[in-house]
Amino acid sequence: MLEDLKKTTWKLNLELPKNNLITMTSGNVSARDPQTNLVVIKPSGIAYEDLQPEDMIVVNMEGEIIEGTYKPSVDTKTHLYVYRNRPDVHGVVHTHSPYATSFAVIGREIPPVTTVVCDIFGGPVPVGPYARIGGNEIGKAIVEHIGDSTAILLQNHGVFTIGKTAKEAVKAAVVVEDVAKIIHLAQQKGDPIVIPAEEVQREHEFYQTAYGQ
Amino acid sequence: MLEDLKKTTWKLNLELPKNNLITMTSGNVSARDPQTNLVVIKPSGIAYEDLQPEDMIVVNMEGEIIEGTYKPSVDTKTHLYVYRNRPDVHGVVHTHSPYATSFAVIGREIPPVTTVVCDIFGGPVPVGPYARIGGNEIGKAIVEHIGDSTAILLQNHGVFTIGKTAKEAVKAAVVVEDVAKIIHLAQQKGDPIVIPAEEVQREHEFYQTAYGQ
Amino acid sequence: MLEDLKKTTWKLNLELPKNNLITMTSGNVSARDPQTNLVVIKPSGIAYEDLQPEDMIVVNMEGEIIEGTYKPSVDTKTHLYVYRNRPDVHGVVHTHSPYATSFAVIGREIPPVTTVVCDIFGGPVPVGPYARIGGNEIGKAIVEHIGDSTAILLQNHGVFTIGKTAKEAVKAAVVVEDVAKIIHLAQQKGDPIVIPAEEVQREHEFYQTAYGQ
Amino acid sequence: MLEDLKKTTWKLNLELPKNNLITMTSGNVSARDPQTNLVVIKPSGIAYEDLQPEDMIVVNMEGEIIEGTYKPSVDTKTHLYVYRNRPDVHGVVHTHSPYATSFAVIGREIPPVTTVVCDIFGGPVPVGPYARIGGNEIGKAIVEHIGDSTAILLQNHGVFTIGKTAKEAVKAAVVVEDVAKIIHLAQQKGDPIVIPAEEVQREHEFYQTAYGQ
Repeated sequence: MLEDLKKTTWKLNLELPKNNLITMTSGNVSARDPQTNLVVIKPSGIAYEDLQPEDMIVVNMEGEIIEGTYKPSVDTKTHLYVYRNRPDVHGVVHTHSPYATSFAVIGREIPPVTTVVCDIFGGPVPVGPYARIGGNEIGKAIVEHIGDSTAILLQNHGVFTIGKTAKEAVKAAVVVEDVAKIIHLAQQKGDPIVIPAEEVQREHEFYQTAYGQ
Repeated sequence: MLEDLKKTTWKLNLELPKNNLITMTSGNVSARDPQTNLVVIKPSGIAYEDLQPEDMIVVNMEGEIIEGTYKPSVDTKTHLYVYRNRPDVHGVVHTHSPYATSFAVIGREIPPVTTVVCDIFGGPVPVGPYARIGGNEIGKAIVEHIGDSTAILLQNHGVFTIGKTAKEAVKAAVVVEDVAKIIHLAQQKGDPIVIPAEEVQREHEFYQTAYGQ
Repeated sequence: MLEDLKKTTWKLNLELPKNNLITMTSGNVSARDPQTNLVVIKPSGIAYEDLQPEDMIVVNMEGEIIEGTYKPSVDTKTHLYVYRNRPDVHGVVHTHSPYATSFAVIGREIPPVTTVVCDIFGGPVPVGPYARIGGNEIGKAIVEHIGDSTAILLQNHGVFTIGKTAKEAVKAAVVVEDVAKIIHLAQQKGDPIVIPAEEVQREHEFYQTAYGQ
Repeated sequence: MLEDLKKTTWKLNLELPKNNLITMTSGNVSARDPQTNLVVIKPSGIAYEDLQPEDMIVVNMEGEIIEGTYKPSVDTKTHLYVYRNRPDVHGVVHTHSPYATSFAVIGREIPPVTTVVCDIFGGPVPVGPYARIGGNEIGKAIVEHIGDSTAILLQNHGVFTIGKTAKEAVKAAVVVEDVAKIIHLAQQKGDPIVIPAEEVQREHEFYQTAYGQ
């Protein structure tokens, strides 16, 4: 079932190592099917280079396995909590990408001091509190603190991104690491020049309407 | 039309991901044909790995699409402004390469403290003001502030490079990131030793006449 | 003899360059066969790209070469000391991976300030004293200072990791570099937020039981 | 002529991009033939991916081109000066690798604070003065300041390494960048712990006699 979405989601998972966002088996991408509300997610602890489309797990919104021979990602409850509470979201990504996570380790948001942050996130990338894995705590922290952004840092942990599609969520995961690197490097040398809030907004709107095909 | 220039410009666009200057679909290279004054530029938001020579867009100096099925880069107006005001320029490149952009975030130029900066840029890589995307503002900022350099940082934004050919502009984009990294690392440890201005100039002239075939 | 273990250990050695943990011929992975107590280890100074499964050396617990035409790694005595004193360990890895080694150069442990450190190491990654290569000193330093961790930094030297299998030890080597990078970057920007010791432990236990297949 | 040495030297030049020591066409490796005293060197400004063994230039000790259709590297006089004044040297490498060059920009040597520095260089990697390209000045600076090391930083410029063979010089170029990175990262966090001079020497002698086949 959901063969197309399994293939798409598998391919998007492979974007994580390709973009140097993860090491070994960490990180995961899921996608929610708009028709059935079923979620396709990566199995736990399988090497990306061994991963095949048919290894992807299908779960329902309560986390029951509908299809798949492997155990799903340990972050599955987090993904599902986000989907249940954000009907607009159809893709979720989790990484510990190093520059972005380094902001999370000190509990600091990523400020909108480059045009790309404005373009993609429309404001600062927020940082949520420390939350325990395994239950609904991480999902709650994301939903309560992500606001209008498509990326959030979780304190002492890593990055979650969301999107109207899984592809958009992956793009947000790539971009948040890229801007985290740029802003880290800038902060090492001096104080980033602030972009006024109304300009952040104007730039965001321009990009969201003018960019792409 | 312009099949050769489309192929060359397509190949030069691929140099951006190959040299780790961009993430996802960001960045673009354009080239101006010396005979027709037409400009070949990358389409907006297309993945580099999917890009084909026939996807490149041909526009005239007023930005009208002469050939191509896609929308051109959102930075097209910027490229055209540079071409209209710098008849010597036949290639323009835009990236948000991280080390160079980190200087732009704090509004600081890259000083000529390694021989490579002298060789390629003949002086500091200047930093221009913040300018809005979508109109002529970024083009104006480039033309007014780039001086004799072939690279400029735009505050809170990224990097633009120019060249007598698109190939030269791509080389400048690669080199500006490389020297930005070296000088960033140096500034983290201490004060770069200054190269006297006349030696910067002498080194530049040596390189420009002696290097290459 | 031990053809399967030679092939596995060869493949795991190739994970070191693949994960950017080593340069040139440095680094090594060994594995101990649980049946025979024989150890398979990389030959000294052979380029990874030239290495073949049949080049791997088999030594006994006293360091006598049982099979192999090459000289074994100069770190062989260290690996054997660990195996003799830690019957639970069947894999040892050595690297000078840059971020982790940079902590070793200043004699500082890697604190458990991201969930991944908790997950994999269950506490700080300790740092042992400077010890001379060639005898038992490095092995002793590892065994005395590694405690319950699976990774240790040796002052002014590099990283050793251990595992119930060589695969686990390689995973620890990859992860210790990854978290060293994140925490280095965090410490450049501010003070990492401390995760309380009991939460470090809880997170570790969750991961060790829930993760993977 | 010298077909074997041309092939070897060509292959060693390709190690520079492979190990991320150079960008675009920068950097070069040369080798001196012990029989004829002729030197094989890279042509100037040719892309590494286009370079073929037959493109390598053969020059004599006075810099006259003995074979080759291209112009040799602009650094040829530097290589030849080193060969003329160091009969023990049969390989020279030049790069602007970023971490090592960042030490050169502030005129600071790389201290022997990891065992790898001791192993390969037997002491600090020295830094020589600023010297002009094009004549004998850079060669002189190298010969006068490199001492017993196989690598030297030249102020505001980059790295030169030497070896009994070109392969050894390439290894020194890879290692000097690797240790420069580690020590840069360490110095950002604190003061590297000093290894006593006699231990630096002991470690160096152990490695030089025990390592490899």
